[in-house]
Amino acid sequence: MSILDVKSFVAGQWVAPDEDARSIENAVTGAVLGRAGNGSLDVQAMLDHARDVGGPALRNLTFHDRARMLKALATELNAHKQALYDLSFATGATQADHMIDIDGGVGTLFVFASKGRREMPDSNVYLDGDIEQLSRHGTFLGQHIATSLHGVAVHINAFNFPVWGMLEKLAPTLLAGVPAIVKPATATCYVTELAVRIMLDSGILPTGALQLVAGGLGDMLDRLTCQDVVSFTGSADTAFKLRSSDHIMRNSIRFVAEQDSLNASILGPDAVPGTPEFGLFVKEVHREMTTKAGQKCTAIRRIIAPQSHVDAVIEALGARLSKTIIGDPKADTTRMGALVSNSQKRDVLEKAAIIGAHAERVIGDPDNFDVQGADSTKGAFLPPMVFHCADPDTAIRVHDTEAFGPVSTIMGYTDLDHAIALANKGQGSLVASVITHDTDVARAVAVGAGAFHGRLYFNNRDSMKESTGHGSPLPHMVHGGPGRAGGGEELGGIRGVMHYMQRTAVQGSPDILTAISKTWVPGAREIPAPAHPFTRHFDDLDIGETIHTDPRTISLEDIEHFATFTGDTFYAHMDDAAAKRNPFFPGRVAHGYLLLSFAAGLFVEPNEGPVLANTGLDALRFMKPVQAGDSIKVRLTVKHKTPRNDEYGEVRWHATLTNQDEDKVAEYELLTMNAFKP
Amino acid sequence: MSILDVKSFVAGQWVAPDEDARSIENAVTGAVLGRAGNGSLDVQAMLDHARDVGGPALRNLTFHDRARMLKALATELNAHKQALYDLSFATGATQADHMIDIDGGVGTLFVFASKGRREMPDSNVYLDGDIEQLSRHGTFLGQHIATSLHGVAVHINAFNFPVWGMLEKLAPTLLAGVPAIVKPATATCYVTELAVRIMLDSGILPTGALQLVAGGLGDMLDRLTCQDVVSFTGSADTAFKLRSSDHIMRNSIRFVAEQDSLNASILGPDAVPGTPEFGLFVKEVHREMTTKAGQKCTAIRRIIAPQSHVDAVIEALGARLSKTIIGDPKADTTRMGALVSNSQKRDVLEKAAIIGAHAERVIGDPDNFDVQGADSTKGAFLPPMVFHCADPDTAIRVHDTEAFGPVSTIMGYTDLDHAIALANKGQGSLVASVITHDTDVARAVAVGAGAFHGRLYFNNRDSMKESTGHGSPLPHMVHGGPGRAGGGEELGGIRGVMHYMQRTAVQGSPDILTAISKTWVPGAREIPAPAHPFTRHFDDLDIGETIHTDPRTISLEDIEHFATFTGDTFYAHMDDAAAKRNPFFPGRVAHGYLLLSFAAGLFVEPNEGPVLANTGLDALRFMKPVQAGDSIKVRLTVKHKTPRNDEYGEVRWHATLTNQDEDKVAEYELLTMNAFKP
Repeated sequence: MSILDVKSFVAGQWVAPDEDARSIENAVTGAVLGRAGNGSLDVQAMLDHARDVGGPALRNLTFHDRARMLKALATELNAHKQALYDLSFATGATQADHMIDIDGGVGTLFVFASKGRREMPDSNVYLDGDIEQLSRHGTFLGQHIATSLHGVAVHINAFNFPVWGMLEKLAPTLLAGVPAIVKPATATCYVTELAVRIMLDSGILPTGALQLVAGGLGDMLDRLTCQDVVSFTGSADTAFKLRSSDHIMRNSIRFVAEQDSLNASILGPDAVPGTPEFGLFVKEVHREMTTKAGQKCTAIRRIIAPQSHVDAVIEALGARLSKTIIGDPKADTTRMGALVSNSQKRDVLEKAAIIGAHAERVIGDPDNFDVQGADSTKGAFLPPMVFHCADPDTAIRVHDTEAFGPVSTIMGYTDLDHAIALANKGQGSLVASVITHDTDVARAVAVGAGAFHGRLYFNNRDSMKESTGHGSPLPHMVHGGPGRAGGGEELGGIRGVMHYMQRTAVQGSPDILTAISKTWVPGAREIPAPAHPFTRHFDDLDIGETIHTDPRTISLEDIEHFATFTGDTFYAHMDDAAAKRNPFFPGRVAHGYLLLSFAAGLFVEPNEGPVLANTGLDALRFMKPVQAGDSIKVRLTVKHKTPRNDEYGEVRWHATLTNQDEDKVAEYELLTMNAFKP
Repeated sequence: MSILDVKSFVAGQWVAPDEDARSIENAVTGAVLGRAGNGSLDVQAMLDHARDVGGPALRNLTFHDRARMLKALATELNAHKQALYDLSFATGATQADHMIDIDGGVGTLFVFASKGRREMPDSNVYLDGDIEQLSRHGTFLGQHIATSLHGVAVHINAFNFPVWGMLEKLAPTLLAGVPAIVKPATATCYVTELAVRIMLDSGILPTGALQLVAGGLGDMLDRLTCQDVVSFTGSADTAFKLRSSDHIMRNSIRFVAEQDSLNASILGPDAVPGTPEFGLFVKEVHREMTTKAGQKCTAIRRIIAPQSHVDAVIEALGARLSKTIIGDPKADTTRMGALVSNSQKRDVLEKAAIIGAHAERVIGDPDNFDVQGADSTKGAFLPPMVFHCADPDTAIRVHDTEAFGPVSTIMGYTDLDHAIALANKGQGSLVASVITHDTDVARAVAVGAGAFHGRLYFNNRDSMKESTGHGSPLPHMVHGGPGRAGGGEELGGIRGVMHYMQRTAVQGSPDILTAISKTWVPGAREIPAPAHPFTRHFDDLDIGETIHTDPRTISLEDIEHFATFTGDTFYAHMDDAAAKRNPFFPGRVAHGYLLLSFAAGLFVEPNEGPVLANTGLDALRFMKPVQAGDSIKVRLTVKHKTPRNDEYGEVRWHATLTNQDEDKVAEYELLTMNAFKP
């Protein structure tokens, strides 16, 4: 095999390694596989290219445009995934591991593409929360918005997931409208390079949106400003070194850190041997220990089981682990491949020795284990090892020593409070799991341990078929954790996009807020509709376009008839004396649904036209009772528009019902699908 | 006047200053007013007291309990505000300044009390966002929650707002269920001490919830953990020193910084002399320069006006400033008091000299100005000073030098992009304002400058009567900003509470999520209602309590009758051929409101009972069309309960309509008010 020269992509050019390059090892054979690094990379040119070319191009796109771009990237990577699989075996990963890294990465792009379309506007200003009423008469209001940072996101990734690790940061960054400079860990950067090449070659991305540094970043971090973000995944030591730099601190540069942590899994007190939960627990621990040879920031490092069941867990886990075939990652029979490098293997053994000083090794022997289809003296192989700590309250090193490989420590607990206290001794983790079928146990752990963990994963017989695994960060859920885990957050749906945007509190008049948010704000100017708005296509409707209907008087006959017809003979509509005893009503009142229905009758345009359907209704509030003799009329205004496909889009209407005294009777938002112009 | 001994409140005891105390100056007379500081404070005892006593007591309360506590504290402080006013004059502040500090602080407590009741559950687990669908069949779902940190919040406050500065941090902290240790700036800590004493004496707070350090913190910050938070307001230099400590960085301890910044105000291109906006602009600038003698972190430091109107602004501002009476803050005629101390005055003059090297002083002379009712040679008095910078593109010091007093720099711009570029040259600020009546100007500034500013304040003729002022952080809106402003956020309603809570991604079965969130999740166990749930009081209803109704068949006559009765003759209900041409419908369909109304008819219990009213409806979605001959039935489940007052509470019901094939036809959430048991 020839030596791979892993290139960087710098301001539009691929740049080869130079004499400063470091060599990269094949995890399975220990041989030199390639090299990466260039001591004279022009990092300022990269920053300028991102800021001056990539940023403006991305900011010019709407969230929907960017979401479509993510979907196209995902489709492109999917089409080339065999090449990524083929290359990835050299990292020590099995095909099952590739599914997590490569398919998982692509899946993350798809989820952000979908959320971008569904949960963000077709605009470049995101609205964060509702209008805040800052004044009595509503002429001065507040709205939080988020807009793209004007800088660049520098992504510093770990070696274990060369594809997912890049894509889980890239998806929210691009959706935010911010260009990225990706710096993968050198050990596996050749896989990242191929993924970047596939994306760049597709021509989907605007120029300057994505650059790659294979090797070191030079002094790039000292050239950042308050408009830039560093997103780091890796060890606590490296994070500390980078984030505590004078330049980063003095300029309040955002630094999102996701560090490995001492994640725990608790076997619930109810999950005794023989229950479905006991088997599930053993299966989850086994999977977390062996996937990626335990090189996962979310892997279970601490197994917390009822004291009386510790032996049973060790026995069941040992039986399962003993059947795990270690060896050549390409072989179909292999269940666990190699660590990424021999230096990583040495590090794991050092850490295991520290744990071994406080706990007894009860499963696995690094000096005596089978490796199939590979040379165990050359490749970075290790067996799964379980330590038993008899005194977890005092042996603090088992709670702060992470062996980043197939290593875990089991410890017993006396009662649930003790289990929670042990889980919290990790001083902050990415994830803790609890295998329990007892909802009281779940609630107690959520309240008692939530503050120490970025994610709490509960599993049992009800969810086991569809559950996604203790160790899997999902694009929908935040990934990160307090303290030892770095204090950062990634992913979590649109929350993850916000790391690359600035939240700004905007205050102003309804007209000003409407213009900024492209969402009509009550009190803002009404645009008289040039024709009935139901006769106008999606594209033609203006935000603020309004009709006012004629009034309709509600009679007692209407109320009685509605009651009889629908069967809704609730006492407030039928019994004047009973209604009067009610704190809300002055006597018999009209049904809320009667008002809604009559309102539709007042504003609907009956003829076939561009309004295709009423698809829903939000935030309906009844504000004042309507009695027989009162009249209602409707103001209907186009509040917001969101394209949904090539044929039609969703129109959100703001409706206010008022009575003959101009008092508000009800308010709501109506959703229709409206056709585009043919 | 005798010397005030300002005490600390340490683990339940008031502790007097010792020989390490520093003296405090009367701003108006320059005389020594008091002393504060104790070199042997037992900071570990304070932390232990907060963590072991205050935290558990607060976490035991629900958000509603804590909100009621805030309201009681606000009421108590209100009752004692004259004493706070009387004491505050010595800080140099006028009665108008006291209104901002003292009344503003109390108002902040009231707003958080109200938001806590309205926007948070009566529980100790806050739900952040909606359920995430993580599985096809819905047996494994996600929900983000927030729970109280288990540590303590250390509040480090600035000298300018001794009451508001404490309360704006304390309100979200207590609402989050976290105890606080307050460290006011020494210069004005005697006012804070009185406010703390009023709150403690009221007996409203649980033991350990609030402690006070008058003077220095010792090594407290080196004893914090990942469960603690430091909330800092003050200078960039001090923030840097504190937050970059090894201990803070290595333990990822939350550090929220709000630093003074070079806030700008832009006069819109449309706001020419003679418009209401021009006068408004001059008024806002005048107010920001003179309130608190310009000692506000949000004050306007940079006045950005169209080049052609710079002279007009200087003239109008000069006229207004020349009428501003400076002097004894107690005098009714005084419009601007003293700076907090003579050392602060010296600092302002030093910074003004730096600005003066790049800009010409056009208003105000520190060596020649009137002071009424006080000795200008002894008190810390200064006149308002305006500098004009002719070349703001190159004179970078006017964008990074903050004179924390009545000092501002005016600069001209050529076009709106130039104005935005100048505003952004502050490299991150707390607030920028734009006085404009042009909504296009507003949108351009929001998109172009949003990323550099924590708050954008727009004002014009429409909002000027009700607007709250460029410099006023409101409890509803975030306060903080990127870069130079510290990168932190405070306030912003419930967002501010989250700084003292941990967000955790929870995954599990519907039953598990229901138990944790006390909110019924679709797919979770249904509890058969022991009687019709409309006959049961608020207190008796269980989360998950469910009824299933009988089915009702919809006839064509029903559809036609509903159309005629309500007037809703939309073509999809009336014209089979037109409906068929529509991408959503197989032919004529029933009205959505007919379904809603019939559904109510199916589930309503007609007799007088504990259900008082249907107050609203949320998240209605029509999922499948219903045609004549189809039938519908309803599942109605208690989703969530929120007490509203002593008589009744809101019940949120989850309703699903299904047809004869068990397909979902519609889904929504219904709101009723239900009486408590008598």
